[in-house]
Amino acid sequence: MPASQRVAIVGVGLIGGSIGLALRERELAAEVVGVGHRASSLEKAIARGAIDRGTTNLVEGVAQADWVVAATPVGSLVDTIHAIAAANERCTITDVGSTKAEICSRLRAPVSPDAWQKRPGPARFIGSHPLAGDHRTGPEHARADLLEGRTVVVTPEDDTPPGLVERASEFWEALGATVELLSPEEHDRALAATSHLPHLIASALAAATPEEWLRLAATGWGDTTRIAASDPGLWTQIFGQNRQAVRDALTRFQYALDAMETALGENDDATLATQLTEAKRIRELFNDT
Amino acid sequence: MPASQRVAIVGVGLIGGSIGLALRERELAAEVVGVGHRASSLEKAIARGAIDRGTTNLVEGVAQADWVVAATPVGSLVDTIHAIAAANERCTITDVGSTKAEICSRLRAPVSPDAWQKRPGPARFIGSHPLAGDHRTGPEHARADLLEGRTVVVTPEDDTPPGLVERASEFWEALGATVELLSPEEHDRALAATSHLPHLIASALAAATPEEWLRLAATGWGDTTRIAASDPGLWTQIFGQNRQAVRDALTRFQYALDAMETALGENDDATLATQLTEAKRIRELFNDT
Repeated sequence: MPASQRVAIVGVGLIGGSIGLALRERELAAEVVGVGHRASSLEKAIARGAIDRGTTNLVEGVAQADWVVAATPVGSLVDTIHAIAAANERCTITDVGSTKAEICSRLRAPVSPDAWQKRPGPARFIGSHPLAGDHRTGPEHARADLLEGRTVVVTPEDDTPPGLVERASEFWEALGATVELLSPEEHDRALAATSHLPHLIASALAAATPEEWLRLAATGWGDTTRIAASDPGLWTQIFGQNRQAVRDALTRFQYALDAMETALGENDDATLATQLTEAKRIRELFNDT
Repeated sequence: MPASQRVAIVGVGLIGGSIGLALRERELAAEVVGVGHRASSLEKAIARGAIDRGTTNLVEGVAQADWVVAATPVGSLVDTIHAIAAANERCTITDVGSTKAEICSRLRAPVSPDAWQKRPGPARFIGSHPLAGDHRTGPEHARADLLEGRTVVVTPEDDTPPGLVERASEFWEALGATVELLSPEEHDRALAATSHLPHLIASALAAATPEEWLRLAATGWGDTTRIAASDPGLWTQIFGQNRQAVRDALTRFQYALDAMETALGENDDATLATQLTEAKRIRELFNDT
């Protein structure tokens, strides 16, 4: 990635702020401009060292950028990306949204002939999803090493130019991440199972725990429900953009849970032990970092 | 707790070993004897500093003890406690099992008249459950601070002498824990919700995750499934001793999950956001330590 490029980050929360911090610490950009809704967030991002300067004016903020990262909540990403593409016809764009298929598909929707040159089509936009985060939000929790050793899924479409795939890959690799290429639809099916479903289940478990018994909860309950503390508005948007794949993953979960409930109800300890052993085997294939 | 007392710990795994380590570091016992099935575990416990001496002979190991902690897997606790009571008619006994109602009830079962003096009835036995642990097992993971700041549930029955409740409470408090008194049945209902159900759910979630997508799992999946790595044999015993309460807790969970699935399927984002907000509220009542 040329260190002479100018980068704009639209949305300087935990992820956007961490990207800015890493770009500046690694001296990977000539300038990092932050675009945000609130002056207070931009001030926090500057104080944290995440951006060189900030503005609440998107058109002004992305005007000089070669590369723009859209890091707003998934529900507003399509509008954000359209606005970036309209404000700067030269820049290439990626995002950090937790869902990909609906965003990529909506960005390909027909536009009026006079807007054709400004549309954020596959020649200028490629989706990304850094598999890193925290249930805490905001630039004050940004960390330069948030992406180090993590996976970033990049989602080329059939007609995405190879040069853009390469550029996005180099960008994330320069921040210390490993890149995995998947189609937007493959990404959403996999993430439904590995991220969205766990959120739904953690939330249902927290919601189903009688409050008067919380004092008898220990680290097991704490681990299993941790992500239920995430931002409800953000997660409603994520679920809303991946309904069918989440429901499919939920069906697989329900099948496994029903089988365990049956073994429990029928005093079939041999089957229950086999089920728990298989779960342990799969859990141990995952490397905690 | 008189520092002149002799303590025996039957089962020197993670919990038994940690109790021994804390007793010795805090100089709370004249002697800590470990009783185990395998000489190798006893050697590890001695090397770790968890016990003064070890033996595979239970009768010999508990003969001189004033206070005995039964720390074997829940499935064998009743037999272990009977054996301790028969070997030493003078000692008082507690355990560390994750379930309480079935164990306490089986220990009250009628015994033959000539065994009367040796039965581990409520005058000599009181149940305990330290809410601390780890998915790792064995004396090599024992830690002197495992119980510090943790809750230990002590489960007196209607006819347990107050002096025994006090003695058990003092024992756990001396190790740095806070004691909560509950009946064995109350304990099992609460722990079904706060510990046993999370294990079942974490295991079902791990088992339902397609292996080829594990490389796309991040900390959310890792946290939510962490306890699925626990020992399957031990957890089969725990579920087996608390079937009905676990199934009741599962019904509450299923109700919460079904409501979320309905909101998701009906595009009812307002309801889904309310459900996620309520889950976050309950999660945030829990203090991570």
